[in-house]
Amino acid sequence: MNIPALPQNIVKSLINFLYQEAKSRGFNRVVLGVSGGIDSAVVAVLCKMTFGTHLEALLMPSITSSKNSLTDGIALCEQFDIPYQVQSINQYDESFRTNHKEANLIRKGNFCTRVRMSLLYDLSQEVRAIVVGTSNKSELMLGYGTIHGDLAYAINPIGDFYKTQVYELAKILNIPRHIIDKKPSADLYAGQSDEDELGYTYEEVDRLLFEISKMYSDLSEIDVKKFYQLGFEKEMVNSIVTRIKKNLFKRTPPAIFTIKKG
Amino acid sequence: MNIPALPQNIVKSLINFLYQEAKSRGFNRVVLGVSGGIDSAVVAVLCKMTFGTHLEALLMPSITSSKNSLTDGIALCEQFDIPYQVQSINQYDESFRTNHKEANLIRKGNFCTRVRMSLLYDLSQEVRAIVVGTSNKSELMLGYGTIHGDLAYAINPIGDFYKTQVYELAKILNIPRHIIDKKPSADLYAGQSDEDELGYTYEEVDRLLFEISKMYSDLSEIDVKKFYQLGFEKEMVNSIVTRIKKNLFKRTPPAIFTIKKG
Repeated sequence: MNIPALPQNIVKSLINFLYQEAKSRGFNRVVLGVSGGIDSAVVAVLCKMTFGTHLEALLMPSITSSKNSLTDGIALCEQFDIPYQVQSINQYDESFRTNHKEANLIRKGNFCTRVRMSLLYDLSQEVRAIVVGTSNKSELMLGYGTIHGDLAYAINPIGDFYKTQVYELAKILNIPRHIIDKKPSADLYAGQSDEDELGYTYEEVDRLLFEISKMYSDLSEIDVKKFYQLGFEKEMVNSIVTRIKKNLFKRTPPAIFTIKKG
Repeated sequence: MNIPALPQNIVKSLINFLYQEAKSRGFNRVVLGVSGGIDSAVVAVLCKMTFGTHLEALLMPSITSSKNSLTDGIALCEQFDIPYQVQSINQYDESFRTNHKEANLIRKGNFCTRVRMSLLYDLSQEVRAIVVGTSNKSELMLGYGTIHGDLAYAINPIGDFYKTQVYELAKILNIPRHIIDKKPSADLYAGQSDEDELGYTYEEVDRLLFEISKMYSDLSEIDVKKFYQLGFEKEMVNSIVTRIKKNLFKRTPPAIFTIKKG
């Protein structure tokens, strides 16, 4: 079975969700990080449709992020009349590299992602707005994100959309073709590619994630054999399920000790 | 009624909690931020008792944090034989101040707190450890903390202890007198004091929080009149309850849109 097509009126439902969730938290204004990629482009346009001018996009380039990311992000904001500002994270990034010469690419990338979160939350405080997230369902299930970094937000309209569904949504919203056609990347170092890191295309990964999601609400219980039987390649199932389980801690809520009474 | 005394064997229960919660997440090693204050001192000693040498304390002084904070934190680690390292956040702090000249003390403080979180999570990744938090129940109920800053952790042994109970625990654990006697402070700018900011002592605040906690599990429903009737000063009840409600968003889990099926 394939991932079903998006329901009619999906855009209207999303706008309603954004408006209501912001309102229930006492806000009528939002901020979000715009990277130049498809996920944040989709969310930015949804926010524009919901909040009009009560919206600010933050672009946070670094030395290592692609030049195109910044220009594509700015072009998107200008095309859709989205208020935006640019804050470079170079100084923070450089300080970290100087102080942590031994750090590998993943640690450097995570630090940058958390600095971006810090600047976005700072902006939200400055303009009295709420932070909207841009993680999709594929990333959330895989745990492919940084805890207290890009995984930090108050509301997220696309967290139930597989990456392949985000493409569908992008077409409905008339996101520019060159953003849709870009290779998916966290853009944390030159040449980074989601699909290279995962080892498989999102098309392949999403079909598996969809079956997993139908069968399990608790991802710690996944039995890989069930998916071999469905005809998925053994090596791929093992690799993806290992990644899911390894990253489950990112979804585990914090544990707080309780004093026993009496 | 007063807050009851801590149960016998509380330290044993706390050690068991820390060990089990780390283990269930696949870790036998922890990191925590040590500020020189009483909360992190208590948690550091509990972690030492639980994890022995599988523990690293991180001290993260800034230009604005008190000099005593650093020396007290180091002295604590040396007294209890807790492995530690010092990473200054000055460079990050200075970059932020340069780029955000308009930012008020609260924004500057929040940024520093989030940089500390970023460095602590980076250390946890470097040494394959889990992050232990140090927020107490008074702070958690009041929302007196920074979301994705000091409120970010995987496990927290003292989140059910009112500040006044943390003092009790500190005595049991033989925390040095000068740390216990210090004025409670987030230490984000010179002369900052929790009790000045709250307008009341923790002794007073905790008595009210205890009554609120007995009566309400949902803090959005608090009716201030109930507490006037219990003899609490009207102005204090209003001030504390306003603060609780204003900060409830910090406890609200993120909302993710769900695609309706069929």
